[in-house]
Amino acid sequence: MSTNILTRVTLAKSASIPLASVPGATKDKALAAMAQALDSNREMIISANKKDLAAAEKLVEAGKLSKALVKRLKVDDVKIDEMIAGIRDVIKFEDLVGKTLSALELDSGLELYQVSCPIGLIGVIFESRPDVVPQIMALCLKSGNATIFKGGSEAANSNRTIFEVLVNAIESTDGMPQGAFALMETREEVNEMLKLDDYINLIIPRGSNEFVKYIQDNTRIPVLGHSAGICHVYIDSRADIKKAIDISYDAKVQYPAVCNAMETLLVHEDIAEYFLPQIGKKYNDAGVELRCDDRSFALLKDMGFIKAILHATEEDWRTEYNDLILSIKVVDSLDEGIDHINRYGSHHTDAIVTEDKRNAAKFIDLVDSSSVMWNASTRFSDGFRYGKGAEVGISTNKIHARGPVGMEGLLIYKYALLGSGHKVADYAGKNAKRYTHKKLNASLADKMGN
Amino acid sequence: MSTNILTRVTLAKSASIPLASVPGATKDKALAAMAQALDSNREMIISANKKDLAAAEKLVEAGKLSKALVKRLKVDDVKIDEMIAGIRDVIKFEDLVGKTLSALELDSGLELYQVSCPIGLIGVIFESRPDVVPQIMALCLKSGNATIFKGGSEAANSNRTIFEVLVNAIESTDGMPQGAFALMETREEVNEMLKLDDYINLIIPRGSNEFVKYIQDNTRIPVLGHSAGICHVYIDSRADIKKAIDISYDAKVQYPAVCNAMETLLVHEDIAEYFLPQIGKKYNDAGVELRCDDRSFALLKDMGFIKAILHATEEDWRTEYNDLILSIKVVDSLDEGIDHINRYGSHHTDAIVTEDKRNAAKFIDLVDSSSVMWNASTRFSDGFRYGKGAEVGISTNKIHARGPVGMEGLLIYKYALLGSGHKVADYAGKNAKRYTHKKLNASLADKMGN
Repeated sequence: MSTNILTRVTLAKSASIPLASVPGATKDKALAAMAQALDSNREMIISANKKDLAAAEKLVEAGKLSKALVKRLKVDDVKIDEMIAGIRDVIKFEDLVGKTLSALELDSGLELYQVSCPIGLIGVIFESRPDVVPQIMALCLKSGNATIFKGGSEAANSNRTIFEVLVNAIESTDGMPQGAFALMETREEVNEMLKLDDYINLIIPRGSNEFVKYIQDNTRIPVLGHSAGICHVYIDSRADIKKAIDISYDAKVQYPAVCNAMETLLVHEDIAEYFLPQIGKKYNDAGVELRCDDRSFALLKDMGFIKAILHATEEDWRTEYNDLILSIKVVDSLDEGIDHINRYGSHHTDAIVTEDKRNAAKFIDLVDSSSVMWNASTRFSDGFRYGKGAEVGISTNKIHARGPVGMEGLLIYKYALLGSGHKVADYAGKNAKRYTHKKLNASLADKMGN
Repeated sequence: MSTNILTRVTLAKSASIPLASVPGATKDKALAAMAQALDSNREMIISANKKDLAAAEKLVEAGKLSKALVKRLKVDDVKIDEMIAGIRDVIKFEDLVGKTLSALELDSGLELYQVSCPIGLIGVIFESRPDVVPQIMALCLKSGNATIFKGGSEAANSNRTIFEVLVNAIESTDGMPQGAFALMETREEVNEMLKLDDYINLIIPRGSNEFVKYIQDNTRIPVLGHSAGICHVYIDSRADIKKAIDISYDAKVQYPAVCNAMETLLVHEDIAEYFLPQIGKKYNDAGVELRCDDRSFALLKDMGFIKAILHATEEDWRTEYNDLILSIKVVDSLDEGIDHINRYGSHHTDAIVTEDKRNAAKFIDLVDSSSVMWNASTRFSDGFRYGKGAEVGISTNKIHARGPVGMEGLLIYKYALLGSGHKVADYAGKNAKRYTHKKLNASLADKMGN
């Protein structure tokens, strides 16, 4: 392990302790300074970004980088405006640190407070997209978490410049600890980061599925995120046909490159003959390529598809196309639809279209996914749309935070027990005192006079 | 991977889906049947346990097993009464599954519900103690989680008999799915379980620190628990001397073999000369052995200690004695005390004794532990004392659940979005509809007519 990395990670871990109790007003001042600093250093940031862009364009010419990646790499005045607006939004968020979540009297004068607090040290690993730095730094700062960043090498100049501008702004704000935010720059440093489970409490990866999977497979640190978004829409026999068409179209076509887009359309056999040709026509107009099971193939094959219409293989049910490609299967029953989703899906987001409330309730109960939609598009599964202000990620984990995760995913809690010399010996043996376990309407902050 | 294990784990995983939506009344019937079945099968259970005890006593004679372990292995009528009482307690717990945690209108007719649900499939791995099976099975059942158990080989007959009695009771209850609970019996099966991160969502280990550490080090499945309990009491310069003595004595002596007992006593230099000889006398009477830094050694060495009084080494600050042994250090300041705790502690439970509210507030803020006590013994850190009814474990994790964890640690949530054909395309581009993000006072259960 390079001592350089360990030194910076240890420093950030130490800084996480005072950072956890910096008052909300001070954090907001630091955030305002970050926004101001981005505004004052536009030229420097854009010129650093130009270096990355020039290098990236050479890689594109050499066929080593995609044009799409270069587009995401670009930082201009509009992007800087967005970064600034994003930070200003975070200032408006409520400070959740130190909030009393529950309070319980254990006995007279012995009071237990469950209080929200930061997780500690977060590792953020992302591919290109320099705008991730201000966004995540703002969220981590507001939630009181120290953070280690590692960005893609294509964006090295942009990331370093933005990072330094922001950290200078934070560290020159009165009352902010030094060293709470650090930047790693090489791939070796990522691999070393992934081993530091004694220091780093949570990893947030931002990038392709393969990238997230690699991180999940190579660390014992908890990873918040998802490595696949295989989302389904199930059209029930009792579906309203207009809703079925609207939702199936929106979920596939509105923006196919994202994790909450539909990859497999499941259709109840009773409605397939009526529904599939109608949605098929719309998919055809939108240039969607289809992978069909035998029954849907028979219903769609003669429609003169512009794009390919193929027979689906077992592999198709497990594939996230992230493109205008869709697999379709006709099922015998709601149960078969639910089983298919639980078996082949990624537990991300799945929808049912039906007018039957009992079928909807069954689907919501039995589909084991972070978001289940009834008569709504899978595309709604998103932190901004869910009212979280900013999104840390979408998690398919079954512990801690699930679904679209906002700042609440960066918080945990601690217990504070306040007594006046209470000892357990008095609550044991003969004449043991009894616990009262009486709910209190009180906050630790009030109690401590904070 | 043995197909036998994979078959049973797959079956339990499948059963976890229907189990997640079994109504509370049905789960309580199954729990009542479990309690009844233990009562009706006392003889069979005790006779199976006698086989284990006989084998264990031979191992004790051969020096391969400790007497304490044999004691914990024993199941008699009193133990069975306790198991039954434990299950009946769980019946009284509120059913938290399906509870609406938050509700938000995203737009007119588009409503988002965050609803609590089971985690899925839990793995419980424990050493001897057959009473773990009914206790954890009751909690998992009530929270709707399928469970794979693996007990110690010393208790194989007891575990198998108790398990079969309980599972028969559950599976003959109308409306309960089959196969949700499974028992593994060999060590090889544990190692295979630990690899099944695609199936098992959470591991709960019950046993020694080494045992928990082994499991944490050998699986990518999240582990709920702690592998060490290095708890501190810090006596501030402004401590009330009676409280200081009561708490330091209780935290070490009342029950030293447990994770929430104190291992290191930190004393502010201003009070050391006055306090240490007084508590030293009490420790001496209780037969506590001491490992002192130079300053505390100088204050205590001439008290004629019955047990050893040694110079502490660096290793002592990191040691969980779980015995009548204590390390003592005199510190210059509250800050040094806090730093020592964050550096050497296990982030489990730490206490400050002081009459100074500001010092207490600082300690509570800056000590990075799952429980922090002000003028109360570390020994209070426990699920029962914290009013949780039953304890799943004490977690030093920084995500999901921290501190003493009750049934809430076995739950996560899912999002249900209810619309009437809503599509994201209407909320994008020109004339985009706006989200209302209005808090709702509604529950999904009411909405779905459950």
